[in-house]
Amino acid sequence: GAGPGDPGLLTLRAWSLLQQADAVVYDRLVSDGLMALLPADCSRHYVGKTSGYHSLPQPEINRLLVEHAQAGRRVVRLKGGDPFLFGRGGEEVAACREAGVEVSVIPGVTSAFAVPAAAGIPVTHRGQSRQVTVITGHDAVSPGGLPADLDWAALARGRGTLVVLMGVSALPTIRAGLLGAGMDPATPVAIVENGWTPAQRVTTGALDEIADRARERGVESPAVIVIGDVAGHARP
Amino acid sequence: GAGPGDPGLLTLRAWSLLQQADAVVYDRLVSDGLMALLPADCSRHYVGKTSGYHSLPQPEINRLLVEHAQAGRRVVRLKGGDPFLFGRGGEEVAACREAGVEVSVIPGVTSAFAVPAAAGIPVTHRGQSRQVTVITGHDAVSPGGLPADLDWAALARGRGTLVVLMGVSALPTIRAGLLGAGMDPATPVAIVENGWTPAQRVTTGALDEIADRARERGVESPAVIVIGDVAGHARP
Repeated sequence: GAGPGDPGLLTLRAWSLLQQADAVVYDRLVSDGLMALLPADCSRHYVGKTSGYHSLPQPEINRLLVEHAQAGRRVVRLKGGDPFLFGRGGEEVAACREAGVEVSVIPGVTSAFAVPAAAGIPVTHRGQSRQVTVITGHDAVSPGGLPADLDWAALARGRGTLVVLMGVSALPTIRAGLLGAGMDPATPVAIVENGWTPAQRVTTGALDEIADRARERGVESPAVIVIGDVAGHARP
Repeated sequence: GAGPGDPGLLTLRAWSLLQQADAVVYDRLVSDGLMALLPADCSRHYVGKTSGYHSLPQPEINRLLVEHAQAGRRVVRLKGGDPFLFGRGGEEVAACREAGVEVSVIPGVTSAFAVPAAAGIPVTHRGQSRQVTVITGHDAVSPGGLPADLDWAALARGRGTLVVLMGVSALPTIRAGLLGAGMDPATPVAIVENGWTPAQRVTTGALDEIADRARERGVESPAVIVIGDVAGHARP
């Protein structure tokens, strides 16, 4: 887990393993700042999306990991955020173990909580939220967008914080789903683009207006969306 | 944020700030291994629970932070896991800012996702879970236990993973609440005690039997409870 992008949010163990790596397999959410920490003689394998193209299919990523490991290389599979939250880490671990490749998983600082924090938002807060739910609008596990079976009624009733990763393009659907299920149209929403990078930008608004505001401001992925009273803590 | 306990899961920035600290204010979930990283001349202030006693009241913790900072000391407020997930970090930041004390928040690796990972459990997994909800059974924000207004029906319908922090003593209530709201009694549950420490232990069972198994095995806090199909990935 590489954390949200700022190299300072890498863990000590991840840093140490990167220094010993022979090969690093990484994707789009791993920042240039992090890649600059790699040893010069370490081979780099990009498997993320390029603009307009899909990322490498999962079976090919799995094969790449196994092949490098079986060639005797120390391989780091570097993923933005935490590898076990919408990162398909579980699948890659299983593929490696099936091939007899030993794996250890080093959790990272998750963008789901750290990116809101970068904008001053605590995902739980006394008197405002005592639970938090994380969903994804679009990622490797759900390339088609929001899960078709998403339970809007349960999410709208949740009385806690809702965090949406990769949800920018799904914003109109999220708004419609939550309002349709009875969530208060005045519920505060904050969108944090490029959290923990110099390009960080925060857009705020009420649930019923946030999709329009995001469009006006040209909000783009990657971004984390926070829905609930705690979003009122957002600072620009 | 100190992460789940293993010093290797501290972030580079947290480590660097600890090296420069004049005073560290910490609580129960900060491991001895982490405290050993502090400079010798750094003053240490324990504000957590001692057995049978409550932790220092929040206003006194706030006052301690402000007093040390106003005396010109560089103060690190070190919290287990992530400071903005059930850590009352938001309240402490507000208290410091009101007193004119500058604060920066360094997120940590959250126990909610990292402790399941230590037992081989990805909180999301293709075909099993595309959302995760985190609640707490007992913490500084909710010293009385589970929130009284917890929406069991929404949690039971959630179709994703439910993670409960500090939920050992609330386990019978959680079981009854979820079963009462119609969750499948065969839903896999895993309890991970002392994650990322040498004392880590994993207890598994179906939802309808887990409270009994935990009692038989003498499961104790601190522990993270994972409820949902992904708990089937647990390894001892």
